[in-house]
Amino acid sequence: MFYTELNAKIDYSRDNLRWNAWGAYGQDFFRVGQMQEILAFLSDEFKVSEIRKTPPVALEEVTLPKSALSPAQIRELSKISGSKHFSIERRERVFHSAGKSYYDVLRLSFNTLKHFVDGVIYPSKESEISKILEYCSKNQITVIPFGGGSSVVGGLEVLKGKGQKAVLSLDTTRMDSLIRLDKESHLATFQAGIYGPKLEKILNDQGFTLGHFPQSFEYSTLGGWIAARSAGQQSNRYGKIEEILTCLKVVTPSGVVETLRDPASSTGPDLNQIFAGSEGLLGIITEVTIKVHKLPETRKYFGIVFPNFEAGLNFIKEVNHREIPTSMIRLSDADETRLYQTLGTFGKKNTPLRWLKNKIQDAVLNFKSIGEDKCVILLGMDGTKLDVAQNFAKIKKVIPMFGGLYAGTHLGEQWIHSRYNMPFLRNHVMENGIGVDTMETSTTYDRVLHLHKEGVAALEKSIPGSIAMCHISHSYHEGACLYYTIIFPMDAKKPEDQWFKMKRTVSDCFIQNGAPISHHHGVGFDHKSWYEKSTSKPALLGLKAFKKEIDKKEILNPGKVFY
Amino acid sequence: MFYTELNAKIDYSRDNLRWNAWGAYGQDFFRVGQMQEILAFLSDEFKVSEIRKTPPVALEEVTLPKSALSPAQIRELSKISGSKHFSIERRERVFHSAGKSYYDVLRLSFNTLKHFVDGVIYPSKESEISKILEYCSKNQITVIPFGGGSSVVGGLEVLKGKGQKAVLSLDTTRMDSLIRLDKESHLATFQAGIYGPKLEKILNDQGFTLGHFPQSFEYSTLGGWIAARSAGQQSNRYGKIEEILTCLKVVTPSGVVETLRDPASSTGPDLNQIFAGSEGLLGIITEVTIKVHKLPETRKYFGIVFPNFEAGLNFIKEVNHREIPTSMIRLSDADETRLYQTLGTFGKKNTPLRWLKNKIQDAVLNFKSIGEDKCVILLGMDGTKLDVAQNFAKIKKVIPMFGGLYAGTHLGEQWIHSRYNMPFLRNHVMENGIGVDTMETSTTYDRVLHLHKEGVAALEKSIPGSIAMCHISHSYHEGACLYYTIIFPMDAKKPEDQWFKMKRTVSDCFIQNGAPISHHHGVGFDHKSWYEKSTSKPALLGLKAFKKEIDKKEILNPGKVFY
Repeated sequence: MFYTELNAKIDYSRDNLRWNAWGAYGQDFFRVGQMQEILAFLSDEFKVSEIRKTPPVALEEVTLPKSALSPAQIRELSKISGSKHFSIERRERVFHSAGKSYYDVLRLSFNTLKHFVDGVIYPSKESEISKILEYCSKNQITVIPFGGGSSVVGGLEVLKGKGQKAVLSLDTTRMDSLIRLDKESHLATFQAGIYGPKLEKILNDQGFTLGHFPQSFEYSTLGGWIAARSAGQQSNRYGKIEEILTCLKVVTPSGVVETLRDPASSTGPDLNQIFAGSEGLLGIITEVTIKVHKLPETRKYFGIVFPNFEAGLNFIKEVNHREIPTSMIRLSDADETRLYQTLGTFGKKNTPLRWLKNKIQDAVLNFKSIGEDKCVILLGMDGTKLDVAQNFAKIKKVIPMFGGLYAGTHLGEQWIHSRYNMPFLRNHVMENGIGVDTMETSTTYDRVLHLHKEGVAALEKSIPGSIAMCHISHSYHEGACLYYTIIFPMDAKKPEDQWFKMKRTVSDCFIQNGAPISHHHGVGFDHKSWYEKSTSKPALLGLKAFKKEIDKKEILNPGKVFY
Repeated sequence: MFYTELNAKIDYSRDNLRWNAWGAYGQDFFRVGQMQEILAFLSDEFKVSEIRKTPPVALEEVTLPKSALSPAQIRELSKISGSKHFSIERRERVFHSAGKSYYDVLRLSFNTLKHFVDGVIYPSKESEISKILEYCSKNQITVIPFGGGSSVVGGLEVLKGKGQKAVLSLDTTRMDSLIRLDKESHLATFQAGIYGPKLEKILNDQGFTLGHFPQSFEYSTLGGWIAARSAGQQSNRYGKIEEILTCLKVVTPSGVVETLRDPASSTGPDLNQIFAGSEGLLGIITEVTIKVHKLPETRKYFGIVFPNFEAGLNFIKEVNHREIPTSMIRLSDADETRLYQTLGTFGKKNTPLRWLKNKIQDAVLNFKSIGEDKCVILLGMDGTKLDVAQNFAKIKKVIPMFGGLYAGTHLGEQWIHSRYNMPFLRNHVMENGIGVDTMETSTTYDRVLHLHKEGVAALEKSIPGSIAMCHISHSYHEGACLYYTIIFPMDAKKPEDQWFKMKRTVSDCFIQNGAPISHHHGVGFDHKSWYEKSTSKPALLGLKAFKKEIDKKEILNPGKVFY
């Protein structure tokens, strides 16, 4: 049901994946005419007369230093994985030297990335990983675990540990098999290097789903989701990945850690919740057991229009406090609602029928006093026909309490079909002098409105003339995730400084408001200093001690999160 | 709604609490005649001609060594909390030197407890706790945090750290106020020393409930729940306490740790889930923010009879996989069902009406082929009237799928009214030569039947002639908690050895089956060696390093869990 809705069957061979942008070659969802309209609209918004072309450099132009691995090291590492699965080739090294953040793509595009991994290894089993970690511990080689490579927080930033002389990327994607589907316990055990679509297809074929669909779904792996505490778009129903997790296996430099396969326990600190979020600092996650669900009988995804953001927020709060089961509630603020509405018109013909439809729409909204500040909610439900019908009836009682207007399933279905497309838009705009980035955090309901305003203000202050907007992407009993997007004309001279300033301003804003530096993107290198500022010192030192004990030579992903 | 159903308004002053048994003086739920019938039944079961009286020693007879605290230390500690809140009195010291496990009560009753705390301090605020920890770190005094004192796993066992000369009990119960009820976010912040009933009453008065009702509810504290990863009887609806937890404040010897007040984040290992389950090893939990819910509009608690344990288990699995919301599903195995049924007849008159009712009941069960192996499920639902009605309708469709028979709400209501009584039964039987203890673990559905049998067999093997039984007390998407009870004639000569053997046999059985050593009781001292055996070594060493960093002088609750 879900897999077949994916836009493409993806060939993940490294040659087929873009090394400096999102996705696979040939995969695109924006037609030429549509992109021209979008770019024209943006240049109009930014009051620039013409879009400036900023094409990326070719792979061959990337200033790549010689691999720092010695011939002996190359020989030894090749022996562990087999020489076919070890590489110091340009393409492999560059592809593995950055994630997919704006800052990453910027540096790759303009050839300003400074540090590169010296080799890439693709182990096929845990014993090989143990050998790699042992060899690298002895030979002072930094190891950066790599799954889908989709980090947007500098999780793959190439940094060496103290005294270390070379950096090895450890790519887990050869380890991507189903180990066991336990249909009685509704648990599946997979090797952690598996990409989202393959995992979901295996489950779907047996009538199950994981239900974990982050924006990065097509290009991220199970291990990466766990390492960075990913959230799928349907997390209201299925939970964040750390809640979906039942147990895992991690290969560390001090040996293998396996957590117990139980539904709950009262046995000291929760080890799962230490390795979830460890972002490669504590070991390589190799095997994960996760909760799976029978494929839902039906789904209902629909739009609701509210007069303003506060009304939409109050609706979300009420639905969650009434404990009405939903899969997703996504509330765009007025600016995002407007932008999506505008983008939606591009590439479509203006027929008389469309004109009439719009007129009627406006009239209805007007009648309901829904005007300029209108905000759209996309609400999704999955389950049995009976459950969805009953829950929908409950939702329909809450909508009018906050002046909302049910807007049908068209918006919802549209969203499902285009849910993985947005990152491809960035590919285009960044080649045309336009920057786009996202930041996200979470807070309790009593502070959502305030933080929403503060975050948008911080963004707009950081890059004058930018378009800043926000949506609530995930919601909970006690609060919600605020997800911000900023679009801006790239600074022609110092685009990196422009980004630093933006990142700094917004991150300061989050932690000054007591909000975490991330809700589901992670900490990585980019957020490290804010993470440290907002974490109590004794706990931070405790984590460092934990890491130092497990990774005595400090070879694992240095310079990230808490180390 | 819930508070008023408590059996008593409890006076928690230390003089009013039993130092060697469960509960407050004067609180009892078993009438003399009823107890006589129960004891006669048990002596019959155990084939002993007469119950052997085993009265506990008086407080004055307890062999209590002189406090090892020096006069200077007593003076300094008294200064920190005020002399009214520091004590080296016999009653205070004995009360704080053990928990409420069978082994604890055994030793207190027969005057075989060997180690006692040397003083008890009741701080009133965090700054006092900081001072106490600083003073004790400097003066090599062990500190054992104390909340309700209801540990059943040796969490309060008086052990000294290396080189330490005295042991101080740090009682948190003066810190028991509501700090803030955030009605918008449905979050409440309490000081952690608050007892269950007071907390629940404060919330109920404002229309809210925490919904956390462990068996120990009346005599345990919020901080203790978190420290030991407690599970309430309605955890299907409200979650285990570590899931209810949003953020906390912990005073450690290295400073105060505060976690962020957010609904979810992606910021490294989850600190909440490190301090939850820390059982006093990492600091004193002083403030906790927890999710609260509007008091449910209605409830429906009812019985269902199944032909055997497997049928009941399959019912539980199906209900959870269909995601039908419940508050509680509790399945007694055939032996427990029989025992409860027998106990239920004691103290009641045999009227002709009762006789007729029983006859009809038997006939119906017979018709449904429910015989000797019959097992009872108690299922509870809370929520709006509409939700409960809809969910009940869904449950009713699942019952016949597994040959079950709906048995009405009588059993459910009865259970609610007597839910906190069971520990009081132990008070009586232990004075009459009969031992009773409970052990619990959890596993995934594919292993529940096997582990159920293995656990009961291990119990019966460990004490020949004992009555062993089991129920499923908590259930999840992927598995369930197995909760075992054993009743046995106390060994007249070596009751402690008898208990050791039982504990050893069952604990070995759990970990040999890959199951955790506890689902909600904790690790403490009693389970430490099994916890260590079943935890991967690198993780164990990592936790030790975390602890050593935070508690440099290793004064906090030594000899428990992982340290």
